[in-house]
Amino acid sequence: MMREVKERCTMAIRFSEVLGKMKGSDLGPLLALTAQPDIISFAGGLPAPITFPLKELEEVAVKVRQEDGAGAMQYGPSLGFMGLREAIAARMNRMYVPMGMTEISAKNIMIVTGSQQGLDITGRVFLDKDDVVLIESPSYLGAIGAFALEQPKFVEVPTDGEGMIPEELEKLIQTTERVKFIYVIPNYQNPTGICWSLERRRKLMELATKYEIPVFEDNPYGDLRFEGEEIAPLISMDPKHLVMYSGTFSKTLAPGMRLAWMVCNDDILAKMDLVKGSTDLHTPSVTQREVALYMQNYDFERHVEENCRLYAHRRDVMCDAIKKHFPADVKCTYPHGGLFLWVELPDGCDARDLFAEAIKRKVAYVPGDSFFPASGKRNYFRLNFSYNDDEKTVEGIRRLAEALKSYLTVK
Amino acid sequence: MMREVKERCTMAIRFSEVLGKMKGSDLGPLLALTAQPDIISFAGGLPAPITFPLKELEEVAVKVRQEDGAGAMQYGPSLGFMGLREAIAARMNRMYVPMGMTEISAKNIMIVTGSQQGLDITGRVFLDKDDVVLIESPSYLGAIGAFALEQPKFVEVPTDGEGMIPEELEKLIQTTERVKFIYVIPNYQNPTGICWSLERRRKLMELATKYEIPVFEDNPYGDLRFEGEEIAPLISMDPKHLVMYSGTFSKTLAPGMRLAWMVCNDDILAKMDLVKGSTDLHTPSVTQREVALYMQNYDFERHVEENCRLYAHRRDVMCDAIKKHFPADVKCTYPHGGLFLWVELPDGCDARDLFAEAIKRKVAYVPGDSFFPASGKRNYFRLNFSYNDDEKTVEGIRRLAEALKSYLTVK
Repeated sequence: MMREVKERCTMAIRFSEVLGKMKGSDLGPLLALTAQPDIISFAGGLPAPITFPLKELEEVAVKVRQEDGAGAMQYGPSLGFMGLREAIAARMNRMYVPMGMTEISAKNIMIVTGSQQGLDITGRVFLDKDDVVLIESPSYLGAIGAFALEQPKFVEVPTDGEGMIPEELEKLIQTTERVKFIYVIPNYQNPTGICWSLERRRKLMELATKYEIPVFEDNPYGDLRFEGEEIAPLISMDPKHLVMYSGTFSKTLAPGMRLAWMVCNDDILAKMDLVKGSTDLHTPSVTQREVALYMQNYDFERHVEENCRLYAHRRDVMCDAIKKHFPADVKCTYPHGGLFLWVELPDGCDARDLFAEAIKRKVAYVPGDSFFPASGKRNYFRLNFSYNDDEKTVEGIRRLAEALKSYLTVK
Repeated sequence: MMREVKERCTMAIRFSEVLGKMKGSDLGPLLALTAQPDIISFAGGLPAPITFPLKELEEVAVKVRQEDGAGAMQYGPSLGFMGLREAIAARMNRMYVPMGMTEISAKNIMIVTGSQQGLDITGRVFLDKDDVVLIESPSYLGAIGAFALEQPKFVEVPTDGEGMIPEELEKLIQTTERVKFIYVIPNYQNPTGICWSLERRRKLMELATKYEIPVFEDNPYGDLRFEGEEIAPLISMDPKHLVMYSGTFSKTLAPGMRLAWMVCNDDILAKMDLVKGSTDLHTPSVTQREVALYMQNYDFERHVEENCRLYAHRRDVMCDAIKKHFPADVKCTYPHGGLFLWVELPDGCDARDLFAEAIKRKVAYVPGDSFFPASGKRNYFRLNFSYNDDEKTVEGIRRLAEALKSYLTVK
């Protein structure tokens, strides 16, 4: 019954400039298709539900309500529950101080309602209309969407299998006005799955330090390393404390808890705190306490290892099926961690056109153009390998191979 | 160790225009004082912890993890968990359809991470720099803070004990450019505790309808009615569906869950949804399911009634102590619901100066000037009566009376 007045309302109401223009991603209706139950979807970035430690999360939920109920159910500080901030600081220090990171204090950590909120707050703290964010090419569409609310310009830095190309980055820094920060995902990048080499990380931080440019180090997948040694994070190469580091429990524990964190220097954190307080006062007191208690009472590292074993297996199942079924001129990454494969179609192909063929065959993915906000390249798509079981993955890849063959034959 | 580089960082990093200017409320350091353990604070808007239904919230936490764990821990839709949206729609229809509200659909409800997030999202959907928000005089500082991130102008509409004065409102509508929406709290307003009369509500909605201006109806306290009949909400007098209604579980169930909702027409909700998705993807799946199950399995209305009995008693304890101890020229509201009293000092007094006297005597409140973003009136302050037990309330009011006498004598 609200529909009937739609047209009348539309005439009178004026939205803000950015929302007036924003029609919503055209991905929306497309991804809505992937929710149909008979579709095998490789579109989302969903963890496998069997990894959720439900028994343990039930135990901590009970304990928190019994032993700290008044705290769990009451308003709390905007930067977050100190017990969780301390647990995160302790873990990061344990992992990264041996790699050269200056020890961080819990006071420099802000808890956010999912890493998406950290991205959004960062956009608001730094960006005015037409400011510039330097990003990898391609980059994460959720970050692009959050920053886009402030109407910046995205400049894609030429990127290869090891990360941004330093010479290209420096050229862009020297020739681009109003660069506010650099946004990167050095570990098992979304969407490509690539992991930056140590050398490239060092070069990036040398340039950031030289030109004093803040760097947003988004690290949702660092814990999901299937093989090879951990490579030092940017925050361990940061003499001027320019790195804003983002970590999350969404990929290792449970995204439905919406718990993530940022580490920033005092000045930046003070600004973030102002926005955080106005944006939702604080992240739920109860979920923060549950995860703090989980970290204290259970072996989180072992849980993460188990996730990695499962996801490494699922990556292999998908890559094997791709090798078996996909046409030879379709290229695909073999990531050593994370949740995604990145598929490159021959030049001139359009992953959106292919999508129509895929949906006909009841299989879905995310077309790649949304990850290239400036160049809009169309011959890529992203596949998630963490969510579906082996059988569905193999069947889905088989269907996708059929779609590919049909599409490439017609082209 | 992050402090040592503070100055160096500050030189290089440029924040957005609004955050560069924003120093943070000068209330911050002042309210930090109120956290000292020996201070009796009437500053916050905190529910009494004894009202939290911890046993029931433990039972639903267990049940949700056992019976819908995969859903509770996974990503969910940006507008929220349909089970909770349906429970809220059913309750609002039960309460307000008999008062004339057109039946609302769960589809027009968006779950937000506390009503603060609804305020913030509304600001982003409607406001550009120098747009105008019409507000009561005084109005809620959390709303002012959220909207302020978009740098609007706040115009205070002359308001008396029954609500905004319609003639003054119409004059302002006719003479003010760029009015984007009207923000009001018709039930037991924050900070004044006043409840709008039916007549004034009708007049407001006649004007909003005539000039087609959206109205944000913030209703955190409507359930906390201690006496008198419920007065119809603005959303029940809204033929053009201009009302954006906000409700919350923070004052009736538990603020630490951070669960609130907005009801909007299709056009506005579509814009809100775009911002919500970019701002935190969605409110935690787990807490939404817990409260949906709580609503289904327990007698929420009875719980609300019990809260009301407690808070009515605490209001009376505070008002009796005020009558007994405060100087006669200090005026105070007697609200019929909500969480706050509003105190008016004689002309020329400054509630910030009095605050220093109060803190010396280990008692605290919120000085009123922050609730007047345009006029900045200084002779008011807000007292919360829900949080402290009887003994603390009486002792706190006694201390405050001493501070008042000392301050008024010197003046």
